[in-house]
Amino acid sequence: MTAAGSATTYDLIIVGAGPVGENVADRAAAGGLSVAVVEAQLLGGECSFWACVPSKALLSPGLTLELARSVEGTKQAVTGSLDVEAVLARRDRFAERDDSGDQSWLESIGVDVHRGTGRLNGERTVVVELNAGGSVTLTANHAVAICTGTTASIAPIDGLAAARPWISRDATTSHVVPESLAVIGGGVVATEMATAYTLLGSQVTVLARSELLGGLEPFAGEMVTESLRSLGADVRTGVSPTHVERDDSGVRVTLSDGSVVSAAEVLAATGRTPATAGIGLDTVGLRDGGYLTVDDTLLAEGTDWLYAVGDANGRVLLTHQGKYQGRAAGQVIAARALGQPVDDGAWGRHVATADHSAVPAVVFSHPEVASVGLTAAKAGKQYPNIRVVDYEIGNVKGAKLHSDSYSGKARMVVDTDREVVVGVTLVGPEVGEMLHAATVAIAAEVPISRLWHVVPSFPTMSELWLRLLEAYRDAAPTG
Amino acid sequence: MTAAGSATTYDLIIVGAGPVGENVADRAAAGGLSVAVVEAQLLGGECSFWACVPSKALLSPGLTLELARSVEGTKQAVTGSLDVEAVLARRDRFAERDDSGDQSWLESIGVDVHRGTGRLNGERTVVVELNAGGSVTLTANHAVAICTGTTASIAPIDGLAAARPWISRDATTSHVVPESLAVIGGGVVATEMATAYTLLGSQVTVLARSELLGGLEPFAGEMVTESLRSLGADVRTGVSPTHVERDDSGVRVTLSDGSVVSAAEVLAATGRTPATAGIGLDTVGLRDGGYLTVDDTLLAEGTDWLYAVGDANGRVLLTHQGKYQGRAAGQVIAARALGQPVDDGAWGRHVATADHSAVPAVVFSHPEVASVGLTAAKAGKQYPNIRVVDYEIGNVKGAKLHSDSYSGKARMVVDTDREVVVGVTLVGPEVGEMLHAATVAIAAEVPISRLWHVVPSFPTMSELWLRLLEAYRDAAPTG
Repeated sequence: MTAAGSATTYDLIIVGAGPVGENVADRAAAGGLSVAVVEAQLLGGECSFWACVPSKALLSPGLTLELARSVEGTKQAVTGSLDVEAVLARRDRFAERDDSGDQSWLESIGVDVHRGTGRLNGERTVVVELNAGGSVTLTANHAVAICTGTTASIAPIDGLAAARPWISRDATTSHVVPESLAVIGGGVVATEMATAYTLLGSQVTVLARSELLGGLEPFAGEMVTESLRSLGADVRTGVSPTHVERDDSGVRVTLSDGSVVSAAEVLAATGRTPATAGIGLDTVGLRDGGYLTVDDTLLAEGTDWLYAVGDANGRVLLTHQGKYQGRAAGQVIAARALGQPVDDGAWGRHVATADHSAVPAVVFSHPEVASVGLTAAKAGKQYPNIRVVDYEIGNVKGAKLHSDSYSGKARMVVDTDREVVVGVTLVGPEVGEMLHAATVAIAAEVPISRLWHVVPSFPTMSELWLRLLEAYRDAAPTG
Repeated sequence: MTAAGSATTYDLIIVGAGPVGENVADRAAAGGLSVAVVEAQLLGGECSFWACVPSKALLSPGLTLELARSVEGTKQAVTGSLDVEAVLARRDRFAERDDSGDQSWLESIGVDVHRGTGRLNGERTVVVELNAGGSVTLTANHAVAICTGTTASIAPIDGLAAARPWISRDATTSHVVPESLAVIGGGVVATEMATAYTLLGSQVTVLARSELLGGLEPFAGEMVTESLRSLGADVRTGVSPTHVERDDSGVRVTLSDGSVVSAAEVLAATGRTPATAGIGLDTVGLRDGGYLTVDDTLLAEGTDWLYAVGDANGRVLLTHQGKYQGRAAGQVIAARALGQPVDDGAWGRHVATADHSAVPAVVFSHPEVASVGLTAAKAGKQYPNIRVVDYEIGNVKGAKLHSDSYSGKARMVVDTDREVVVGVTLVGPEVGEMLHAATVAIAAEVPISRLWHVVPSFPTMSELWLRLLEAYRDAAPTG
């Protein structure tokens, strides 16, 4: 199906119309360009239908029930248990596979939609194998943007692929809760799905080579591990699956120490692979597959017409950050095409500067893990002088009021030469919405002296900010 | 009881050791001054024992239960009702009337505590009528700080005072939930206590002369009124009680239209009065009673030694803002006493600049109301060019995920000459922790162009920020 018009020449052709491609299209069209998007699956992409949205929908009811059970007076009202069928039905409503709204919106902003698989065929040329059959060759006057994202990787563990494991899409869209679930991996998908299925009543075993949530502050993975265990999951870290096999009764995972984990189902949450193989990069002198290297305007190295935006460039594998890149890319492509000034200094409107220093992420585990900027370990490598301050969130009155026995931890990392915050990590129930304040402080490089004038409202949990500032002040070397 | 030492001469004497006085003491002592506090009641003051903390403790369990009831899958587990006795017992634990922790802390930082009623008796002189009997005269080398706060006002309605109404302290500390409760007033106390008692099962009637939450964006009061009604309260706005009387069956409130409201109890939530009468201001040439006028260092007009901090100066009647003033005052008093440089330019460490433009407040109603900076109406008077953008929070994916049928509204007010945000109001369930991001943006005067680089994590409710920026951009006049 090709949209009304069926043009074959555009200022900009976008391969992949997930949230990132849609943002590129929106900004480029607003800038005055003629734009086409090429998409073989659903407009709106992985995040809406198969990732962030359905995973959060699976998690949210169970986490809310845990909260209700944690407050004296409220918990007495909670005498039943989570209605699993209702949770799955609610999740289905969120991830309904209907992209007609996106189609209408793209049409309304003048963007043509080509339903099919796009592949470069030389400079500024995209061949589309149409879903409806046949093909069409599109030509770009100015630019092509690769927004094809990533797909789930299945780690090269003997027997794993043959055992037809769940990948993240299966876990987020399943209509059954397996009696037991083995999760191979320790990253965000593994952690969130282990939490979701534990709350939904599955007996979950997590098999992770290292600690959970590697790359974040170590206490994040530790606290989530402890909580998962207290919810009834079996979390094994420092273990390596060596062999997987499926039979009629389920799946058996053999570990390097010879032990065996049996489960009704297995989830391979073992990373992502860029969806850049077989899309014709070799026809323009680039390597087929792999992440594309780009500058801060998202322009691919060595070209003046090819952009890679979102997961495909490997800078940050997060929907919101890809959309942010998409806005910058759409704007800069339009500016360059029309000979307008390019604002590509740090924090300009045509660059994705925040990718380097102010990327926020929330893991919807129990407790939640919210982080932005650098960990203490990374900041220590990047800045000559840093100060790290920690605070137990449960000591804030607003946290105690929020739920009984609130337990959480906050870390703030400061570059003491500039006196600006370069990293914040929050672990605790309901910390997700507290993160944006940290993201403002970091991305805007607000000096500590000014943060003292940013008063948190009492008795919110955000009073944590005051405690972190006090801890920072009181940890200052004297003399 | 006088603390160890029983000195009578100090660098600084603080009259009133609520949270504000304690902050002044802390910073002045840290700055090297000898400090005494004078307190007739409990150290820690109104907020901890009789206001913010117990009121939030009354509200929090009921609001959490409402949340649990609003999520498909979770609500099926909620088959019981709020355990009122457990809520009251939990509230009691939060507001336990024991200030020994504060006493120990003040001692640990070298601050003397004089338990009694302080009264000025000429310049830099405070006479304390000791709780234990007798009196002591204290002399300040440098400064006296008045941190006496405010007390509840009972409006001059015929018969009201004689009917022995509840004031806010009674509502927050009651061990009974009256079958019915008439609330006179429409401000924060009236709104929060009407919400709390409605959730606790009382039949509440609110009697307010104008709309609820006057002074905030008008939609805030409208949404809270609608919600209170849907929870079962009778909210009458634009009405004036003319007469109140109590008999054995309860209280009868006659309104100006002749109608009568009967209730088991009545709460007079009719404002606050500065606790500055009878404290000897007349002995130093100032008016007895009333709010003290101060500059941004909290120094009282016409003096070089008397400070008024917190509610007593009438700048902002909020605990957190008083504590903020307290930090500035403690620091500047120490700096001046020791002949150190004074940093009193805008946003310096010795001034309370945020009082003018970046005061946050959260009303723990259902829905919550969180605001910082100016309303559209006030901004329109203060800035020649503003733009106001509104967004329905329920349209943010994170809000839909948070609870079914989420309804909320956000407003952002921008000074278009400087392109900085000057006001934000959020109304909706659980918006309280989202406010601090707005407070950072406003207090740090982060330009809109930089806020585009502050990426909200998907799918949190904080994505609202992206929607507000888009609405701002798309509402820009063209041509």
